[in-house]
Amino acid sequence: MIKNENDLSADRNIFKLQKENERLRSLLQVAESLGSVIDLDELLFRVMEIVRERLNAERCTVFLIDYDRKELWSKVALGLAEEIRFPLGKGIAGHVAATGEVLTIDDAYSDSRFNPEVDKKTGYKTRNLLTMPMRNKQNEIIGVFQVLNKKEGAFTQDDIGLLKAISSIAASAIENAQLYDELNKTFISFMETLSTTLDARDYITSGHSRRVTLYSVQVARLMRLKKEEIELIRYAALLHDIGKLGIPEIVLFKNKKLTEDEYNIIKRHATLSRSILKKIRFKRYLKQIPEIASSHHEKIDGSGYPLGLKGEEIPLGGKILAVCDVFDALTSRRQYKDRIDIVDVMSVLEKETGNTFEPYVVYQFKNITLNVLIEILEFGHKEDFDLGDLALLRNYTLNDLLRIRRQGAADEREQKAAEAFMFYYQRKYRGE
Amino acid sequence: MIKNENDLSADRNIFKLQKENERLRSLLQVAESLGSVIDLDELLFRVMEIVRERLNAERCTVFLIDYDRKELWSKVALGLAEEIRFPLGKGIAGHVAATGEVLTIDDAYSDSRFNPEVDKKTGYKTRNLLTMPMRNKQNEIIGVFQVLNKKEGAFTQDDIGLLKAISSIAASAIENAQLYDELNKTFISFMETLSTTLDARDYITSGHSRRVTLYSVQVARLMRLKKEEIELIRYAALLHDIGKLGIPEIVLFKNKKLTEDEYNIIKRHATLSRSILKKIRFKRYLKQIPEIASSHHEKIDGSGYPLGLKGEEIPLGGKILAVCDVFDALTSRRQYKDRIDIVDVMSVLEKETGNTFEPYVVYQFKNITLNVLIEILEFGHKEDFDLGDLALLRNYTLNDLLRIRRQGAADEREQKAAEAFMFYYQRKYRGE
Repeated sequence: MIKNENDLSADRNIFKLQKENERLRSLLQVAESLGSVIDLDELLFRVMEIVRERLNAERCTVFLIDYDRKELWSKVALGLAEEIRFPLGKGIAGHVAATGEVLTIDDAYSDSRFNPEVDKKTGYKTRNLLTMPMRNKQNEIIGVFQVLNKKEGAFTQDDIGLLKAISSIAASAIENAQLYDELNKTFISFMETLSTTLDARDYITSGHSRRVTLYSVQVARLMRLKKEEIELIRYAALLHDIGKLGIPEIVLFKNKKLTEDEYNIIKRHATLSRSILKKIRFKRYLKQIPEIASSHHEKIDGSGYPLGLKGEEIPLGGKILAVCDVFDALTSRRQYKDRIDIVDVMSVLEKETGNTFEPYVVYQFKNITLNVLIEILEFGHKEDFDLGDLALLRNYTLNDLLRIRRQGAADEREQKAAEAFMFYYQRKYRGE
Repeated sequence: MIKNENDLSADRNIFKLQKENERLRSLLQVAESLGSVIDLDELLFRVMEIVRERLNAERCTVFLIDYDRKELWSKVALGLAEEIRFPLGKGIAGHVAATGEVLTIDDAYSDSRFNPEVDKKTGYKTRNLLTMPMRNKQNEIIGVFQVLNKKEGAFTQDDIGLLKAISSIAASAIENAQLYDELNKTFISFMETLSTTLDARDYITSGHSRRVTLYSVQVARLMRLKKEEIELIRYAALLHDIGKLGIPEIVLFKNKKLTEDEYNIIKRHATLSRSILKKIRFKRYLKQIPEIASSHHEKIDGSGYPLGLKGEEIPLGGKILAVCDVFDALTSRRQYKDRIDIVDVMSVLEKETGNTFEPYVVYQFKNITLNVLIEILEFGHKEDFDLGDLALLRNYTLNDLLRIRRQGAADEREQKAAEAFMFYYQRKYRGE
């Protein structure tokens, strides 16, 4: 049967409607996918992947505008490992961010606006590109999409339309994620500032909580704990000594030997940490902070304080804190005194392993690489490091160092690494 | 022309596609609308409004599940002012939350599952209803939709389908908003706990920052400041004395008269508040916290400290803090001493208005109603209040009280209000 004109026009209508249907369904999927992510990094990654796939392109990068620093940045560029930052207005993305223009370039290398530098650095070959501003509900430009290398042919008007629709959905999700990210950064920097301020009241404890936190996070990572567990341990470490707020300074900062009564007063800080932190309505996965923070003086044989918990009764975070807390106390520089040799520090820790400390925690502590270890030990003096030294130290762990120092180096490179570490470990600062 | 069978079938197809198109477009709008809100209250309100409108119903309530308390709750029920809470499993919504069933009831009053109590309380007449669980991406039930009184006829299968689609979009948005809300509550309760702990180191300042915060928020509200400005002032008030962390306790808690040197040391706390708070990466609209917190001892004639700022140089928040800070100091109960009479307290404040204090701030401070004022003055003893007294005090401001006490009451009710206020103001607690 031959279709008449009515039929043909109806077919065309149906085809158009079906196309539009598909487009709407696909956008709805995008909205549901992006609407369910609050973590900024994860969201950016998802946006880029969606755009890349739906526009049938090889790559997509989303740049966000940092108006404070007048820069464009992208954290997770597919295929590039590092964060990219450049001034607003620079390059094609910068141009688009500044003008709000939509740019399609069919042959990048024959277009003067294209900057081939990034290609040179990455070995990637850009053929064509589509660059579009991302606008929020108030029509302000908050970022830029850069889509590279359409897989077949060049970018079309349909691509532009689709990207515009995705952009509008993505902008809302990104703004929410940024609000969450900002609040989280405010909260973390509040805890960091507080613990730094508390520690700084006395030169002996200055920087203590920050360093204990850095060690603890390293150990937690080496144990391959989940992201949320690491965050829990991180905050508990930052706050483990907050109970010292309730100890009179005259006892806390006494620089002569403490009487037994005074020592008992000081020991109260662990219980006080718990009772202060218990008053805070921590969000779900941080609820264990009071228990972890207050158990940093428990010992696995049950002879610690405040509760005399044994073995498995002590939360893992508390066991990690215990090791890092003592390590930091033993390696701190006291006025007019050199640091105790790291081998002797570790001998003390090893002697107490199995009684005071959990063996697996000490084991993982020794797996910290020497570049990380020295950067924490010398936290606040990072700018003084020789980059070559750090690159060398990256190949050895604390465990290696102990072997080298106790049994001798296997080769010259090991010897050099041990010497480099000890140089920073033992050096003095002006004024000390 | 008469249409043939082909034409008719095509028409039907086109009609179906157009319908589906409309539905998708409408859902996409819902997704864009809900995806752009991070504030939980605002979001819940918007979800309820959208469902009510798209299902052509009179009311919609969204209940969320609080698994910790095993309750369903709704904060902003359209048409009802208060928060509703009831046990999981109770009523139709509770039943739906527990079983995951979708329930449509065409004639509520002839159905035994319907509980007419809420109608009785509110005077509303429920005819029919649609109740559906809200599920997140992991298919867990996180809440319940209750849609009341379809405007024409009863709820249909189409309504159920539409609500299911909206529910899936809403669930993601609500989960994100809940994460933001939880983090915000964690952050606020952290600041509150810290300031309470700092103040509690000395009985004289115990509760000071919390009360100053409550007064300041009242004044800011009376000034009709924006929500974000009120939040800014609230946090600055909570943290205004954080600099006292850097003042030796031996000076800070000295209970004899201070020497001039000691007083100068104490005055440093304002500058220290600024420098501590400056280290915190506050999110955008909180950036002014250090300036506000550290200006609570500035005077508008320029004779204050730490910077000797004058008039408009002092941020509004700082001017509010200044009044509330002095009011709290003058009305605090010192050991073994009664409170200074509120009239005398206000005479001191009035004498300094125009020199130390901004007149408009003092003016608004006096507009605080007496029930609010006494609840802040007696913060921590709220359970002792007679509800009848509070209801009476709600009708008078501090300004009224001063007039009554200075010039006599206009009627018996005023006299009673003044006496009720003074009863709580002057009472003693056991142990004092």
